[in-house]
Amino acid sequence: MPTVSLALPQTPYSVIIENDCLAQCGQLIRQENITGHLAVISDTHVAPLYGQQVLKSLQKAGYTASLITVPAGEASKNMDQVAQLCDQLAQQGFDRKSTLIALGGGVIGDLTGFVSAIYYRGIPFVQIPTTIVAQVDSSVGGKTGVNLPSGKNLIGAFHHPKLVIADPKTLASLPIKVLIEGLSEIIKHAIIRDESMLLSLEKIADTLHSPLSEVTDTLFWSDLCTLIADNVAIKARIVQADEKETLGIRALLNFGHTLGHGIEAAVPYGKLLHGECVSLGIRAALFLSVTHAELPQKEASRVLALMEKLQLPLVLPSFVDPQQALHKVSADKKFEAGAIRFVLTQKLGSAYLDKQLTSLDMASAMQELQTPISL
Amino acid sequence: MPTVSLALPQTPYSVIIENDCLAQCGQLIRQENITGHLAVISDTHVAPLYGQQVLKSLQKAGYTASLITVPAGEASKNMDQVAQLCDQLAQQGFDRKSTLIALGGGVIGDLTGFVSAIYYRGIPFVQIPTTIVAQVDSSVGGKTGVNLPSGKNLIGAFHHPKLVIADPKTLASLPIKVLIEGLSEIIKHAIIRDESMLLSLEKIADTLHSPLSEVTDTLFWSDLCTLIADNVAIKARIVQADEKETLGIRALLNFGHTLGHGIEAAVPYGKLLHGECVSLGIRAALFLSVTHAELPQKEASRVLALMEKLQLPLVLPSFVDPQQALHKVSADKKFEAGAIRFVLTQKLGSAYLDKQLTSLDMASAMQELQTPISL
Repeated sequence: MPTVSLALPQTPYSVIIENDCLAQCGQLIRQENITGHLAVISDTHVAPLYGQQVLKSLQKAGYTASLITVPAGEASKNMDQVAQLCDQLAQQGFDRKSTLIALGGGVIGDLTGFVSAIYYRGIPFVQIPTTIVAQVDSSVGGKTGVNLPSGKNLIGAFHHPKLVIADPKTLASLPIKVLIEGLSEIIKHAIIRDESMLLSLEKIADTLHSPLSEVTDTLFWSDLCTLIADNVAIKARIVQADEKETLGIRALLNFGHTLGHGIEAAVPYGKLLHGECVSLGIRAALFLSVTHAELPQKEASRVLALMEKLQLPLVLPSFVDPQQALHKVSADKKFEAGAIRFVLTQKLGSAYLDKQLTSLDMASAMQELQTPISL
Repeated sequence: MPTVSLALPQTPYSVIIENDCLAQCGQLIRQENITGHLAVISDTHVAPLYGQQVLKSLQKAGYTASLITVPAGEASKNMDQVAQLCDQLAQQGFDRKSTLIALGGGVIGDLTGFVSAIYYRGIPFVQIPTTIVAQVDSSVGGKTGVNLPSGKNLIGAFHHPKLVIADPKTLASLPIKVLIEGLSEIIKHAIIRDESMLLSLEKIADTLHSPLSEVTDTLFWSDLCTLIADNVAIKARIVQADEKETLGIRALLNFGHTLGHGIEAAVPYGKLLHGECVSLGIRAALFLSVTHAELPQKEASRVLALMEKLQLPLVLPSFVDPQQALHKVSADKKFEAGAIRFVLTQKLGSAYLDKQLTSLDMASAMQELQTPISL
């Protein structure tokens, strides 16, 4: 099966990307020599869709497995839920030799990964991501964690999965809006590492507006699978080069995220998805790349045109207070000893970590986000 | 200063053991090149005793430091307290470059260590242990964690401190009972690795019955300091040899703890201290070592005589249900794939991991604990 390998010194693992591979997850997990009881952790959206299929495949591969479901949504990504899950696992007799399976999107992956990082001081886990963001980004790289009232992802651990099983066909059940928002992470990867992916996105953008569950074109699914695999390969190479985010390489993945996170923190609950905030952040980062890194306007416009075609938000909605978003950015950034670290691109397909931008630059980018785009 | 080094490949660190070194903790921490803001985490017993002294020393060394206090006692070692501490740290602006200082006994060390393992996916921490158990055992080795309603230490992480500062003089403020219970871990170390420590204990046992705060004999403090340093060295060598407890070497530290933990889990809340349960567990393990590992009865009796002299409990109190304790042991042990792993000694100063004892043997040891000792 198409596989991307993460050649990490201590914890190497594989990411399998293949249409319809979900049905074989039991066998794929067995091939990794995973033994012991399995707990599948999923949410109230995903469990009804794929829970039984996964359990059946695990049982067919000889595993004893149970399914634990948490409420869908970001609100489940907290310490109470972590404690509850750990206690449920203990009460059901899961021990240090058990393995957790994260079946769902980023929230389930981050939550399950964190639980597996701390349960019995760390047990193995497998990621089965079912959203684009989870497949191309969050399931790969070992970052796990939950939110605090005072901030997102403030609690966590680096804990790599033993295996990632990404089945693009699971994306068919996503609401269009959730599907589209996930593409902003692919656009980010294209900008910082592989311009050619913009072509692929332009090619499949039209199809992406009708429900994927109705798309039977084998070529489309094959292209989508390749696109996801290419994205996983980008993420994998970056993680390999800078596993713990100490060398400034992994930080490049924050392209569009500095202002994106600020906006996300200032958005009334549930009004914008993560990828939609990142979309706004990408526009801001492209603007600053043009003004401060000599990125040709033409290249920026090409990306913006694609994002517009995909109906990703590019103008700050009126329900977001730009001052509050800027405030959140500086609250976040004060943690980097005063300097604002910001990822810029001088040329599509490449990026670098700039350390010269000021809060004035952030404000001018936020200003730009309040104007319509002109292509 | 007298120092034991842990030569771990990824995270080497030092344990400083010296009378009155608490007053120099700021300087000692500065020598480790620790920068950023410091949060001292302590409890309602220890903070009033040593909190200000530690803060002053830190400030004198140029640090900005604040003190966060949690309720004293095992009940603070839970996920709620972890979440609360993390949120307090975030609200007070502690960032990924901050360092935590654990000032207290085992509960504070385990709790603070775990918070530092997961806050911002891991920040540095320093241990300043103020009980015997914490100084000779729990502050060294990187095991951190908290309890779940369903069991002790079921949540945790391996996260080594950057430095351990053990000042034996802090033991002077301990209630005699707490001081004595800590000695059971020293007795354990003596049994599994260094019989000569029994001599030291026999030597200082008499002094230990009067409050240490009244002991001015320099030689006593010097001897105690050496004894603690010797214990740290034993723990350090074992941790170095088997950092993640995967090779069966670190498991030897469980001597007396298998039945000890079972008893602890069956004791009505607060009726026995950890070290008192371990004391019972040590008697049980000595009994099984005589019956199953050819340990001469004379050697077992020598240890029991010392423990009796120290007034450590050797007979199961009537408020502990032996059946319930046995049940807790087997609940714990089912996690090791059916086999009961039990640490035995054939000769004082050595130990091995036995895999042949059955639940019948556990029951006979529990029976033995219900009879008076005969020396």
